[in-house]
Amino acid sequence: MAHIPIREGLAGITGLLEYRLDSAKPIRELTQTLMRGDSPLSFAERELIATYVSFLNECTFCTKAHEATAQVLFEDDTIIDSVKWNFNKAPISDKLKSLLIIAQKIQQSGKSVTVNDIELSKNFGATDIEIHDTVLISSLFCLYNRYVDGLASWTPEDDGFYKKLAERLVSQGYTGTTEPIVHSE
Amino acid sequence: MAHIPIREGLAGITGLLEYRLDSAKPIRELTQTLMRGDSPLSFAERELIATYVSFLNECTFCTKAHEATAQVLFEDDTIIDSVKWNFNKAPISDKLKSLLIIAQKIQQSGKSVTVNDIELSKNFGATDIEIHDTVLISSLFCLYNRYVDGLASWTPEDDGFYKKLAERLVSQGYTGTTEPIVHSE
Repeated sequence: MAHIPIREGLAGITGLLEYRLDSAKPIRELTQTLMRGDSPLSFAERELIATYVSFLNECTFCTKAHEATAQVLFEDDTIIDSVKWNFNKAPISDKLKSLLIIAQKIQQSGKSVTVNDIELSKNFGATDIEIHDTVLISSLFCLYNRYVDGLASWTPEDDGFYKKLAERLVSQGYTGTTEPIVHSE
Repeated sequence: MAHIPIREGLAGITGLLEYRLDSAKPIRELTQTLMRGDSPLSFAERELIATYVSFLNECTFCTKAHEATAQVLFEDDTIIDSVKWNFNKAPISDKLKSLLIIAQKIQQSGKSVTVNDIELSKNFGATDIEIHDTVLISSLFCLYNRYVDGLASWTPEDDGFYKKLAERLVSQGYTGTTEPIVHSE
């Protein structure tokens, strides 16, 4: 049970966003801008960064939601698993691997990102805006993961829920409806 | 030197906000809503929570900026120091101490907040919205601290800078000007 009274049937972040609408509005806008706005990073790459940070923070709801979304966008069910367990061996570009090193550091602390991490990423072709967006997306999911788990929001267990949520996040983005997702356990 | 090209003379978060204006807008609105919008927590209490989380994350810019702001709002120069070093002995209410326990847990991980932490806080009179706002403010500063330090933004050293920044944050809030603060080292 969540630590505060959240509308029944609203899982994870959605219940929290309904709880306080005035703070929800800019959170949703920030997420839409970073995850679906202009960026040289593809939607799939951004969802992968979000998934990886959420996985490192052990936030089950956010990991499952963004993993399912990344799978739809990559049109591949295996990339995310390989990234979670050892991204150095995953079938992704060296540039994306170097950005995941930055994301991994950000999950620990902003101060752990080194000049060498940034140089490595630039050597693999990452631009300033790609580095900026990686840092800010990773930081945003450090917020989300804490918000969701810190208030013990509801985490559905069946994968069908996350597949439907992923379809919604792909088709509507982050400023669409927060109506409960109807699913059968 | 920052890891990405930031306008000269803009310290800490201000340079980052100018770097990408479309993501800056909802970040500023979220901060204004949480730090200056409706809440049973006073402005001073919210700035204290922001300072404490930033201190635990070892983010010098955010700690100094919000410490200076909290000092103005509390009209007291000693409370923040006593909170930073041992908040159990600080001259603040038991309710605020219990909220700082939640903030401290959030800084580590959302999952570290326990039912007992929440019950303790409710026993000292904290309401659901106070608990919600404590969690979200703490999570927001986990974002800010990572954003500021992860991109190695400029951290001025002299206290005069932070006093002027605090005056601005008290008088204008978080959606005012980001023009450089003129100060002499």
